[in-house]
Amino acid sequence: MNVLIVGSTALDSIKTPKTQKTRLLGGSASHAAFAASFFSPVRMVGVVGEDFPKSSLRLYQKHRIDLQGLQIAPGKTFHWSGEYEVNMNNRRTLATELGVFETFTPRLPPSFQDTPFVLLANIAPALQLHVLDQMRRPRLVVADTMDLWLNIAMPDLLKLLRRVDGLVLNESEARQLAREDNLFRAAKKIRRLGPDFVIIKKGEHGAILSNRRGFFLSPAFPLEKVVDPTGAGDSFAGGMMGFLAGAKGPIEDNLPRAMIYGSIVASFCCEGFGVTATTRATRAGIEKRRRALEALTRF
Amino acid sequence: MNVLIVGSTALDSIKTPKTQKTRLLGGSASHAAFAASFFSPVRMVGVVGEDFPKSSLRLYQKHRIDLQGLQIAPGKTFHWSGEYEVNMNNRRTLATELGVFETFTPRLPPSFQDTPFVLLANIAPALQLHVLDQMRRPRLVVADTMDLWLNIAMPDLLKLLRRVDGLVLNESEARQLAREDNLFRAAKKIRRLGPDFVIIKKGEHGAILSNRRGFFLSPAFPLEKVVDPTGAGDSFAGGMMGFLAGAKGPIEDNLPRAMIYGSIVASFCCEGFGVTATTRATRAGIEKRRRALEALTRF
Repeated sequence: MNVLIVGSTALDSIKTPKTQKTRLLGGSASHAAFAASFFSPVRMVGVVGEDFPKSSLRLYQKHRIDLQGLQIAPGKTFHWSGEYEVNMNNRRTLATELGVFETFTPRLPPSFQDTPFVLLANIAPALQLHVLDQMRRPRLVVADTMDLWLNIAMPDLLKLLRRVDGLVLNESEARQLAREDNLFRAAKKIRRLGPDFVIIKKGEHGAILSNRRGFFLSPAFPLEKVVDPTGAGDSFAGGMMGFLAGAKGPIEDNLPRAMIYGSIVASFCCEGFGVTATTRATRAGIEKRRRALEALTRF
Repeated sequence: MNVLIVGSTALDSIKTPKTQKTRLLGGSASHAAFAASFFSPVRMVGVVGEDFPKSSLRLYQKHRIDLQGLQIAPGKTFHWSGEYEVNMNNRRTLATELGVFETFTPRLPPSFQDTPFVLLANIAPALQLHVLDQMRRPRLVVADTMDLWLNIAMPDLLKLLRRVDGLVLNESEARQLAREDNLFRAAKKIRRLGPDFVIIKKGEHGAILSNRRGFFLSPAFPLEKVVDPTGAGDSFAGGMMGFLAGAKGPIEDNLPRAMIYGSIVASFCCEGFGVTATTRATRAGIEKRRRALEALTRF
């Protein structure tokens, strides 16, 4: 089945201890869309400026990402630049130029409005809500978020939580949102705000799922070299949603395996700048890592 | 088969955000010995002072820990006091009174010298080496260590590494010892210093095994409440060694499962002050958590 992905579409400039790259294709929707495209057909909603490279448009198309919902607006594409510290775990934002993103309102083409699987990748919760207002009874809605919205848009976020099936967020965001340090308790507390399931992303330490069945602990694929972790969380969410949209049977049964596939696509994401390594991955390569991860965690 | 455990035997005073407890039975050898005792008979080597409570001696005995190697010396028992921060992940030492530990030289009773499984729990590497000098061809020697020895006793530690089969250490220690930030690469680098296998403990995030077969990722048992994590790492190592000593077949085949059992015993350790929760656990309770952990990680 189809997956609708709404989020940011950006050009990123990234500095790591070893290298610096400018104007890489990025944004939460881009990372998630490429990740999901391995498993299901993707419909993307976002906005770019007139400076957006044609080669990036072609890259989306090569991955059969439906761009009917991608607005090309007068002005500049959203540009984020950030820097990673030595251990690649901490990053700081150097600059954010919103460009056309500042006045972005997601508009769903009529053909997108009945997409069964919806991933609200990281953007302002008000925009995520606006997308839901345009949807007709989707089968599964999952939202991602970030600390910024916890700090400046909490009322919108709380409204959103009552309308989604699942929430994906990282460790520190979960602690902040739940006001609870223990991640297992935090996940349960967040579920009481609305979502049936909560997934806490722990980067290299994997991810935790909490739903009415209990917990599932997803390992991360071991990487001996991390080039650029930007977009790994978006890739995780995208890979997971793509897998769920392509899988048979109840969503609850498929969630653990979907998280594993999300982790695997995220591992590819980390091995190159921007979407370079993700877009070079193959379904066969993903299956190989999935089998390897099974062997690495069997006891 | 028997497990020999050498390390510190202490009285701990521990402050957490919620409570404060004084003169709890602790020390690396104590925690490891109780943990191992669920799976195999344990022989313990250590030193305590004349102030050491009789009730603690009885507690060891209740767990069939052979105390022939426990010296009772004139003076005071090693006393450590520490404080945990809100999230229970960071702790700081408030005071260390070495007492009889200052002049401790481990002496192995003749009956201990042919013990097949040896856990050199955390003490000065010079003392760990001195234990090995008294052993007759043990089947498996595993050492634990801590950052202090990396800072003040590196030459001894490097000597030790050439004489052990396995090394257990935590994340930051592994990074420091290998001078490598990536844990998978760090583990491989440490193996080049001597040990056939290296286990990196990541607390709530589980543990990583590196050996010639590759990696194994061990999950940690999810805990919704951590009372006192002191000794969790020692319990992990002790539980693992106890399981290995009690298991049939090649050690390499048993290592992943041994780590799982180590994690489970460590999870009990965290649920009470000192050894309270560990010593109240049962083999049946351990098996119950092992089955639960299998279900929590199946995909």
